[in-house]
Amino acid sequence: MTIEDYIRQNITHYAHEDIVLPFKIELISFPKDDIITDYGQIEDKVYFLNQGLVQITILRNEEEKIVEFFKSGEFFSSYTSLLTQHPSDIQVVTLTNCNVSVIKRQDLLDAYSKSILASNLGLYVTQKLYLSRIQREKDFLTKPADVRYKELVLRNPELTKLVSMNKIAKYLGIQPESLSRIRKFLDS
Amino acid sequence: MTIEDYIRQNITHYAHEDIVLPFKIELISFPKDDIITDYGQIEDKVYFLNQGLVQITILRNEEEKIVEFFKSGEFFSSYTSLLTQHPSDIQVVTLTNCNVSVIKRQDLLDAYSKSILASNLGLYVTQKLYLSRIQREKDFLTKPADVRYKELVLRNPELTKLVSMNKIAKYLGIQPESLSRIRKFLDS
Repeated sequence: MTIEDYIRQNITHYAHEDIVLPFKIELISFPKDDIITDYGQIEDKVYFLNQGLVQITILRNEEEKIVEFFKSGEFFSSYTSLLTQHPSDIQVVTLTNCNVSVIKRQDLLDAYSKSILASNLGLYVTQKLYLSRIQREKDFLTKPADVRYKELVLRNPELTKLVSMNKIAKYLGIQPESLSRIRKFLDS
Repeated sequence: MTIEDYIRQNITHYAHEDIVLPFKIELISFPKDDIITDYGQIEDKVYFLNQGLVQITILRNEEEKIVEFFKSGEFFSSYTSLLTQHPSDIQVVTLTNCNVSVIKRQDLLDAYSKSILASNLGLYVTQKLYLSRIQREKDFLTKPADVRYKELVLRNPELTKLVSMNKIAKYLGIQPESLSRIRKFLDS
């Protein structure tokens, strides 16, 4: 999927438009297990995943937690660091070979001030990040791990083929043994 | 503070501009302890607090928690409900008499598609909500209650005069007795 497809699918009024992107993009390939943004780095780019899978981790009390997976057709970034220009407290790592469209922060800021398409795109992506953050927080408080696992697989069917069970357990905040029991029960 | 002031102070390129708002606003006064948006209601407005103080609460396991205070010069709404058009799981209540500028959801959506000022304003407010959500989550995990209390008072000096200690304890997620000990220690 390309950024132009993403815009046509998600931003009202652009569904049937010829789209000229109001910022420069650079196409970059990352190998599997590569760090795109590291802990402590100041984020100065936004990424669109044309193909592949990435994970976002955070360190809490010296333990690494997986907070998000992003798949093809989604924007990602160390977004808090991008906005605040403080060092990132998350790390972005590729889980497969990835083809990515990269937008520089300054190019994006310039586009926001001139282009209604750019600012509507930024608004849409930020709203989506906000909603998914709230939903995840709510899910953790209200849904048991087996329900969250089923929903993750529904949202991301290819994930279980590409990501180790250890990583999925880490994302769900449970022990790998518990996830194994959940999977056996769901398969039975 | 007015929305025009807010735009001049926060949105780049508008600092010295004459601003014509790209959407209709309605000025409304709410008395103290009035419900602006209730649990279960579908949010169809965004509010700017010209004067006053509001609180946002959420129900978790039949217990009501205070998740946010908004003061003069800030936008608020049941934002998740506004975006998803699902019933609100938060409640917005005035803590003082409030003067509010009200924007209808549909007027805002229309403005986003036509006005670069509107979409930049929406983008800025959404980024701010996103950052404050992340910051609050991080603070809860990493900072003790006394530090969070001191930071709340610094951000919102008038809050302790206007809001009962019970409410502030509820916001901090501690018992009123613990807050009382923290205050005595800080005053000594």
